[in-house]
Amino acid sequence: MSPSAPKVYVSRKFHFSASHRVYNPSWSDEKNAEVFGPCSNPTGHGHNYELEVIVAGTPHPETGYVIDIAYLRRLIEERIISQLDHRHLNTDVAFLAGRIPSSENLIVAIWEQIQPLLPEGVTLVELRLWETPRNCFIYHGQKA
Amino acid sequence: MSPSAPKVYVSRKFHFSASHRVYNPSWSDEKNAEVFGPCSNPTGHGHNYELEVIVAGTPHPETGYVIDIAYLRRLIEERIISQLDHRHLNTDVAFLAGRIPSSENLIVAIWEQIQPLLPEGVTLVELRLWETPRNCFIYHGQKA
Amino acid sequence: MSPSAPKVYVSRKFHFSASHRVYNPSWSDEKNAEVFGPCSNPTGHGHNYELEVIVAGTPHPETGYVIDIAYLRRLIEERIISQLDHRHLNTDVAFLAGRIPSSENLIVAIWEQIQPLLPEGVTLVELRLWETPRNCFIYHGQKA
Amino acid sequence: MSPSAPKVYVSRKFHFSASHRVYNPSWSDEKNAEVFGPCSNPTGHGHNYELEVIVAGTPHPETGYVIDIAYLRRLIEERIISQLDHRHLNTDVAFLAGRIPSSENLIVAIWEQIQPLLPEGVTLVELRLWETPRNCFIYHGQKA
Amino acid sequence: MSPSAPKVYVSRKFHFSASHRVYNPSWSDEKNAEVFGPCSNPTGHGHNYELEVIVAGTPHPETGYVIDIAYLRRLIEERIISQLDHRHLNTDVAFLAGRIPSSENLIVAIWEQIQPLLPEGVTLVELRLWETPRNCFIYHGQKA
Amino acid sequence: MSPSAPKVYVSRKFHFSASHRVYNPSWSDEKNAEVFGPCSNPTGHGHNYELEVIVAGTPHPETGYVIDIAYLRRLIEERIISQLDHRHLNTDVAFLAGRIPSSENLIVAIWEQIQPLLPEGVTLVELRLWETPRNCFIYHGQKA
Repeated sequence: MSPSAPKVYVSRKFHFSASHRVYNPSWSDEKNAEVFGPCSNPTGHGHNYELEVIVAGTPHPETGYVIDIAYLRRLIEERIISQLDHRHLNTDVAFLAGRIPSSENLIVAIWEQIQPLLPEGVTLVELRLWETPRNCFIYHGQKA
Repeated sequence: MSPSAPKVYVSRKFHFSASHRVYNPSWSDEKNAEVFGPCSNPTGHGHNYELEVIVAGTPHPETGYVIDIAYLRRLIEERIISQLDHRHLNTDVAFLAGRIPSSENLIVAIWEQIQPLLPEGVTLVELRLWETPRNCFIYHGQKA
Repeated sequence: MSPSAPKVYVSRKFHFSASHRVYNPSWSDEKNAEVFGPCSNPTGHGHNYELEVIVAGTPHPETGYVIDIAYLRRLIEERIISQLDHRHLNTDVAFLAGRIPSSENLIVAIWEQIQPLLPEGVTLVELRLWETPRNCFIYHGQKA
Repeated sequence: MSPSAPKVYVSRKFHFSASHRVYNPSWSDEKNAEVFGPCSNPTGHGHNYELEVIVAGTPHPETGYVIDIAYLRRLIEERIISQLDHRHLNTDVAFLAGRIPSSENLIVAIWEQIQPLLPEGVTLVELRLWETPRNCFIYHGQKA
Repeated sequence: MSPSAPKVYVSRKFHFSASHRVYNPSWSDEKNAEVFGPCSNPTGHGHNYELEVIVAGTPHPETGYVIDIAYLRRLIEERIISQLDHRHLNTDVAFLAGRIPSSENLIVAIWEQIQPLLPEGVTLVELRLWETPRNCFIYHGQKA
Repeated sequence: MSPSAPKVYVSRKFHFSASHRVYNPSWSDEKNAEVFGPCSNPTGHGHNYELEVIVAGTPHPETGYVIDIAYLRRLIEERIISQLDHRHLNTDVAFLAGRIPSSENLIVAIWEQIQPLLPEGVTLVELRLWETPRNCFIYHGQKA
């Protein structure tokens, strides 16, 4: 990147509907109910999740694009959202196996899935995951 | 109501998170998958539902209120939302027993629950139920 | 209107910030507190109100417009919103004098103000007034 | 429909981005500028339109559905939205030829396109078209 | 925190309705009107404020939670929102005494109230305060 | 700024409707269509853009304001939005001449226009530009 090339962030929002049960399988149902309350209801419950993916890069001089946002959209829908939409997060998603599907753990796992997919010159800088319109989780990856 | 008493509609929005599986128990899993697609995934999926309750009446001359909206809020939260929030609609909700939990059937069942609760002089006129921000279901009850 | 002229509804949303105290001046402070709760706090409280004005008419064959929405916007802002924005509804608004400023009474009073302002061929059909994003009041005027 | 079959409304929102110029080709540029103001700028301008399609019917006893909303979505996207998205409404849309592309004329034209597409037992009852988040147009079709 | 423990941000939105008058008590009414315009109207005006509270921490390995968001919600509602909702910010809120209730001063004062309440391992990193849907104030605290 | 003066961010959202065609004039129409797809449709298309302007500073002790937000609003509307609203970005906007009007290039150009306008003590820290409700572009300027 030349010293004068501007760094621009590009953000796209995605949507998926899923169910989950927040519980720790090494605990009793009683302890799960005590710690997690209604979120640990054995039959589960669900959300319409919104996922915002923010990447950064320099606009290409010939296109004015950091990344073709239509390409970014297809990439994330085909590789990530298709694994989550209309699924049960405790049982149906390979990349969540063995993790308590809290939104904290979910956002870290989604980061690990998206990061290796991005083309050269485009960096994943932030994920935002809304569990409800009022509850949001934010992740910037791990600092080296 | 005197001929000149204005009729005003009062609306309040509620929120609940639930999971469901849209399927017909008298069909095979194959036929359910064919008709309902991913909505019939056996482990279910979930939504953040928004429910708008619209009632009508005449403002009381001493209060200017059709109904105390704080009262309406508590009534619907305690009697209706508490039965739906963080639940699985196929198994956990008494008033949905024996019904396929499509949003069409859910909105009709919620109407039947709310209507008898309202105080005299206040009429239930419309329910709106958002399954996602882009899918909404509307019901006005049955005409006599 | 010819039998085949389509009737189209045109809606515009407006915004104003105001304060009010819901109370009945013929009652004691105690009775006001008992009936209206925190809405009757003597120092008042406030809201960002949203007002949706819906009018109906037939698109003019030479313009395709029921009404020039820029004209409707200026008309409502200059004649109505300017009287309400950054005001105290109990004391500062001439057309509310003597009325308890519940949203029910406010929406009826706004209707009375807007209706005579509209040009011929354009009918006021609905007002929607949001007191908060979750509380809305709707009025269609009085049937003859 | 049996007397006791409930009538439920199903609504789905669609999105398209388009440009238009509001002008009357039988007028001079000066008269267009005078009547339509900046909306008649010769190089045009654009909007992110939101279109809400509301249909009505009776839930089918075997599915609980008035209409499969995934089917409704594909139908409207393939037959209507594909003709409007990323287009210039004055020149690129066959079903708008010869009409001033005001939102009033656009909503009536969209109604005429959607109505014949719907399956038996499902009735188009309302369209809502947002030109901006604050300007909306509503149409219920023509009464016989 | 181990070098590999991910840092996740958890955000929750709150709502309160309040009134205020922006004015400097050491100035004349004329100077207040000149500087603050309609915001200094002596009878005050009001807003529906939205407050977003963003905290950071490491998900606990046994729960997957940075903080139980239901606990965070109760804590902020009971200790902060209850002091602000349905109040007049100039006269009714102890922690604002002696401050001009601009949103800038309000957000700094709310930060000072929330920071000491948070449990160990959970850090307050950002507040966002919307005065209207289009005006927002953001604060990250003071750097040491 | 004294060491203890708090730094507060003030954000205001603006709206404009514009059309554009994303294409590289040094390429053939075929290559433009191949690279940009429907965004390069020769007749153009349009959007309702939302622009969020975020500035930072220290609240003035006599007013409690970082900047009078009504002043900021007029400044940006008169100097920036008036050049963009109801315009074609490829042909009508002087400060975009010679640039491909991708949102990446647009946000950098808007930054260059706003930065010199701000009063002393107020710093431009972030722009957010929504092309649609789901696509957003973010810029923080160039680091020295």
